[in-house]
Amino acid sequence: MKTTQKVRKILSCYESDNPGTKANLARILMQGRLGGSGKLVILPVDQGFEHGPARSFAPNPAAYDPHYHFELAIEAGLSAYAAPLGMIEAGADTFAGQIPTILKVNSSNSLARLKDQAITASVNDALRLGCSAIGFTIYPGSDYAFEMMEEIREMAEEAKAAGLAVVIWSYPRGDAISKDGETAMDICAYAAHMAALLGAHIIKVKPPTAFLEQGEAKKVYEKEKIDIATMAARIRHVVQSCFNGKRIVVFSGGAAKGLDGLYDEVRGIRDGGGNGSIIGRNTFQRPREEALKMLDTLIRIYQGKE
Amino acid sequence: MKTTQKVRKILSCYESDNPGTKANLARILMQGRLGGSGKLVILPVDQGFEHGPARSFAPNPAAYDPHYHFELAIEAGLSAYAAPLGMIEAGADTFAGQIPTILKVNSSNSLARLKDQAITASVNDALRLGCSAIGFTIYPGSDYAFEMMEEIREMAEEAKAAGLAVVIWSYPRGDAISKDGETAMDICAYAAHMAALLGAHIIKVKPPTAFLEQGEAKKVYEKEKIDIATMAARIRHVVQSCFNGKRIVVFSGGAAKGLDGLYDEVRGIRDGGGNGSIIGRNTFQRPREEALKMLDTLIRIYQGKE
Amino acid sequence: MKTTQKVRKILSCYESDNPGTKANLARILMQGRLGGSGKLVILPVDQGFEHGPARSFAPNPAAYDPHYHFELAIEAGLSAYAAPLGMIEAGADTFAGQIPTILKVNSSNSLARLKDQAITASVNDALRLGCSAIGFTIYPGSDYAFEMMEEIREMAEEAKAAGLAVVIWSYPRGDAISKDGETAMDICAYAAHMAALLGAHIIKVKPPTAFLEQGEAKKVYEKEKIDIATMAARIRHVVQSCFNGKRIVVFSGGAAKGLDGLYDEVRGIRDGGGNGSIIGRNTFQRPREEALKMLDTLIRIYQGKE
Amino acid sequence: MKTTQKVRKILSCYESDNPGTKANLARILMQGRLGGSGKLVILPVDQGFEHGPARSFAPNPAAYDPHYHFELAIEAGLSAYAAPLGMIEAGADTFAGQIPTILKVNSSNSLARLKDQAITASVNDALRLGCSAIGFTIYPGSDYAFEMMEEIREMAEEAKAAGLAVVIWSYPRGDAISKDGETAMDICAYAAHMAALLGAHIIKVKPPTAFLEQGEAKKVYEKEKIDIATMAARIRHVVQSCFNGKRIVVFSGGAAKGLDGLYDEVRGIRDGGGNGSIIGRNTFQRPREEALKMLDTLIRIYQGKE
Amino acid sequence: MKTTQKVRKILSCYESDNPGTKANLARILMQGRLGGSGKLVILPVDQGFEHGPARSFAPNPAAYDPHYHFELAIEAGLSAYAAPLGMIEAGADTFAGQIPTILKVNSSNSLARLKDQAITASVNDALRLGCSAIGFTIYPGSDYAFEMMEEIREMAEEAKAAGLAVVIWSYPRGDAISKDGETAMDICAYAAHMAALLGAHIIKVKPPTAFLEQGEAKKVYEKEKIDIATMAARIRHVVQSCFNGKRIVVFSGGAAKGLDGLYDEVRGIRDGGGNGSIIGRNTFQRPREEALKMLDTLIRIYQGKE
Repeated sequence: MKTTQKVRKILSCYESDNPGTKANLARILMQGRLGGSGKLVILPVDQGFEHGPARSFAPNPAAYDPHYHFELAIEAGLSAYAAPLGMIEAGADTFAGQIPTILKVNSSNSLARLKDQAITASVNDALRLGCSAIGFTIYPGSDYAFEMMEEIREMAEEAKAAGLAVVIWSYPRGDAISKDGETAMDICAYAAHMAALLGAHIIKVKPPTAFLEQGEAKKVYEKEKIDIATMAARIRHVVQSCFNGKRIVVFSGGAAKGLDGLYDEVRGIRDGGGNGSIIGRNTFQRPREEALKMLDTLIRIYQGKE
Repeated sequence: MKTTQKVRKILSCYESDNPGTKANLARILMQGRLGGSGKLVILPVDQGFEHGPARSFAPNPAAYDPHYHFELAIEAGLSAYAAPLGMIEAGADTFAGQIPTILKVNSSNSLARLKDQAITASVNDALRLGCSAIGFTIYPGSDYAFEMMEEIREMAEEAKAAGLAVVIWSYPRGDAISKDGETAMDICAYAAHMAALLGAHIIKVKPPTAFLEQGEAKKVYEKEKIDIATMAARIRHVVQSCFNGKRIVVFSGGAAKGLDGLYDEVRGIRDGGGNGSIIGRNTFQRPREEALKMLDTLIRIYQGKE
Repeated sequence: MKTTQKVRKILSCYESDNPGTKANLARILMQGRLGGSGKLVILPVDQGFEHGPARSFAPNPAAYDPHYHFELAIEAGLSAYAAPLGMIEAGADTFAGQIPTILKVNSSNSLARLKDQAITASVNDALRLGCSAIGFTIYPGSDYAFEMMEEIREMAEEAKAAGLAVVIWSYPRGDAISKDGETAMDICAYAAHMAALLGAHIIKVKPPTAFLEQGEAKKVYEKEKIDIATMAARIRHVVQSCFNGKRIVVFSGGAAKGLDGLYDEVRGIRDGGGNGSIIGRNTFQRPREEALKMLDTLIRIYQGKE
Repeated sequence: MKTTQKVRKILSCYESDNPGTKANLARILMQGRLGGSGKLVILPVDQGFEHGPARSFAPNPAAYDPHYHFELAIEAGLSAYAAPLGMIEAGADTFAGQIPTILKVNSSNSLARLKDQAITASVNDALRLGCSAIGFTIYPGSDYAFEMMEEIREMAEEAKAAGLAVVIWSYPRGDAISKDGETAMDICAYAAHMAALLGAHIIKVKPPTAFLEQGEAKKVYEKEKIDIATMAARIRHVVQSCFNGKRIVVFSGGAAKGLDGLYDEVRGIRDGGGNGSIIGRNTFQRPREEALKMLDTLIRIYQGKE
Repeated sequence: MKTTQKVRKILSCYESDNPGTKANLARILMQGRLGGSGKLVILPVDQGFEHGPARSFAPNPAAYDPHYHFELAIEAGLSAYAAPLGMIEAGADTFAGQIPTILKVNSSNSLARLKDQAITASVNDALRLGCSAIGFTIYPGSDYAFEMMEEIREMAEEAKAAGLAVVIWSYPRGDAISKDGETAMDICAYAAHMAALLGAHIIKVKPPTAFLEQGEAKKVYEKEKIDIATMAARIRHVVQSCFNGKRIVVFSGGAAKGLDGLYDEVRGIRDGGGNGSIIGRNTFQRPREEALKMLDTLIRIYQGKE
């Protein structure tokens, strides 16, 4: 694997990491059709945990099979595949070395009332399964946020020492935040920044709206005239909040929307300097051919061709 | 022990496990009268913990003796015997090597108010007692569910590293779920799927009813026209939810019912592609000869003879 | 030390234990005047923790001195002496090898409001002090019961690996149980059974009354016509609940009562097949000569002489 | 260091301890002007933690300097100096070997609402700082009491294995106890007894009043006619509650009172057979010369000269 | 690096520390324009965690980049740079050896409701990143204060053993304290003293006001006529509360205020004998040239030139 100059530049920002971790970041950055471009499209399949199997896979029953997702990610030329323990265990051997995997090590479910997640896999699991990274969700704004941060702190230290990369899903949620606030501009940038401060290599947040949640923050956004009018502007502000672009940040596809809406959003991510998309339900809930077509378009958008 | 093609096919789905764990799965799958067929009947005796000795054993006092259950399981030609620490300790030496044992490592009791269980045995206990697997109950829907998931995650990692198999009893329960919801189709499939995601090798759930608990799920079942009209159809959906049949799933006998009702249920499990039954009270609360007769019928049903 | 056939038969029921643990059980079973008979009388002195020094020892001030209890147990020809850390430390060297000791490793006190106990000694303490066993109290029915079970599970694993025996005091208590229920027949049998399931070698419960606490259990006792009319019958049911007599079960002396009442109770224990008594306050709160006389009578009852 | 017969007799009561711990107890018992007499005066300086620096040291500003207390204890010929981590670290090297030190390993403060303490130092800290003992406070009667007992149990095991002595401050406090009850005769004796049962080598309690807190205890004190009329009688009862005098027990100076009141109290401690005083505020809040004079008087009282 | 007599005198107060820790203290004390003088100016950048990226960096967008702060601290000739994990990781290699770094190992955020912080880095992180010290915040007065103290106790032991220095941010906060009380004279001195007792090498508090919070303390301040009229007098009292000046104490810049107000405050710190300032927002929220000018003035004040 020969890395591109673009990728080497990105890797140089991870100046404190050991060669093992950098190699795993490189594997993800060099994988698939966007390999070498500094852009990423990741397939995450944790919906089964979050919403149950029928809500996740019934629209496209082939997706009940764990191999389906490996194959889809490989065929579509994506950058990595992220899933909980059981899903990775069920395909890690068959697809060994064919696509970087991210082991999602904590998970929630829609039968739970607590705004928390259970740790459901370990760094050792990631190593024995040949994963390139661990993925962990934090809920800033939840009363469990401190605990979740302490959990990923400990797991991240262990992962980095073992040469793995660390991906943090930073999803604001909890009693201190309104529903609109969960995707507010100030909160999203804050969530991304905290993930960076926690030492994440790759940060995942939702695309922000132009809403501002916190009064103190609002004053600053207005006083400093921070541009948050367009999606591209908002993405740019998130990128800035990730150490001025020195950390990779990718955006979830969010709730199902029309394809045109999705493509527009992705153009905003691209134009704002975001590193890419991590897009689950929109992918595996479509028939395979439709999904491949959609992913092809996404990739072409990141390639600047659409 | 020579494994059958059917068993080797099942084992091949556990592609990330070490040979030790596969050997223990093979021991269970090759044991008894259903050995080699891919079908299982397991005898679980944790009722003493759950309901106390008199409610469990007074109807058939011979069952107060731990040896009784080993002997019954062996004579009936069952696949494995599952019980808490004390019960296994009391017979592990006498019956060493005669039937695979599953050490139930957590337990509740009817004097407890919390929807939780106590960890009552360890992986080391399973190893020193020559068990083939550990068994663990989770209560999805309980406020303790995250903790229980974290407990089995840790024990499962340890068990797998030691070459043991992991059986998860996934029993929805708790404030977030109605009484009917505990056996609802959507909840049961969800519970089975979460056990699979947690890395279980064998999943135990209750046979589902046609009730649908969660509004969001109900919409999907209706929209996607998921067939849940018959027991066989519902079992098929559970099997699908277990990685499209790539994980072994067995069903409890549920509350005492007439034998005919039980046999019909088991035919549904068989016809829906379930891997078998795990049946306690219905077994050891009958006189020995009756129990053997009933188990013979169950086995014959799985053999397609009744 | 040559063991009797009776003792070897009892030891054979502990089929999963290592020779170290069996040797310690043998030491207790071969000690004193009941040595070799399969019967036991144990002196427990944890009243100081439970009720304070004056309530425990003022009636017989010689008992303030830890040596007093060692000497009394030895002179009376008892089977073992059980006490908290400080009491054992204060005499372990002087009386080394003269009587088996049981280190009580958790303790409550009457200044506490929580239905829990503090862990106040360790397996390592038991080893350095030359004890034969650890003793641990669980409160089935308390909201702390699961935690207490997890504590003894962990300590029992450690103790067994180190060749020690495990004694569980199973005392139902808590919001889920009425005051009468604490000594109810169904609850007592349940408590004894749970201790057996937790892997106890010796189980300590209170002598049960004919009261039945739980509705579901009551139905079974009535339907199955379980005989609980006399103390002997109730003891027999407890013994049955301890793996059909495969685990040693001893009974506390309970609240102070007349000597005749005590002797009758002990005859009931003997006639019901119980293994013996563990009797504290009734012993050390009497003047030494009276206590020795009472213990002599107890032993003679177990010998079938009174 | 040649020990006296008196000291050897005291040490012989610690029959289960290793030579390292006995040597440290001997260092304390042989130190200063009371060395060899079996009596002790210890200087504790944890007031800064408990009440803040100004309330502790402003009356005698020289006491802001940690060296002041080492020097005072040495010059006064005291038995040991007890303080939290920072205070010991600030003088351990300068005064190495000049006076035994007791590292207070947990601490509360008057900004806290919980009836608990924070662990603020470790056994390793005690070892690296050359201390002879660790000191730990428990609050019997607090809902945190079980936790505190478990903390000192663990630390005491570690300390004893490392040849250190263990001092327990047993201060009843909490919702289960009235304000008067904190120094009640029954509670104080109970608190001292629990410290002994927890394995303390040296027990620190407050001098008790004649008040009786618990109804059940009161009955016993009255029935058994326990003499608690004078301070000497009350001390005698506490000493008895410390394993009939087999454990060293020292008494705090309590709230500031007139010197005559203090001296009378100390005569009571002496006459009741207490082992000595542990006296902080009364010492370091006075000008140095006054403090030395007061300590001289205390020592002379214990020597039987006043 | 040759240390000055002033620095050697300061180091001599840390008499229990190992050469590794003293060397790291020396590195900080000898760094920059105040090197060797015993005075310090530290740049802390934890505002991103505390208030989010926009509120922290939008006024001076260059500050979004982690390298900016390293460069500013180096160019201004400061003593050390303190920041959370991600910020240090992003520059540790580029600026290795150019300025001592303090890894802030716990952090709060303004989306949290609990008066606690999450542990967000470890001693091992500090070592692998070449830091000279760890920094930790405690909230005396919070119900989490005991836990926070136990966390820093454990980390401090580990840090000291590894030759690192320990900096404690002692910020009173919580239900037991009024808003004014957070900077009250008595509370501030108490907070500083507790940090010293916990074993901190460098203590950070806010400059105190003349307000007195606690009734008992107020009596003493009035009775002992403690001078708290001027900032210099109040600083002097804080210094005294830090073991009579034997521990380094630095003061935060507090809320944004006019430059003249800030300079006056710093003169008070200098005149009262404080060791220096730790000043964040006031620094990095100004344009670079303004910040450098301001820091130049601060340094000149500490040099006695302004």
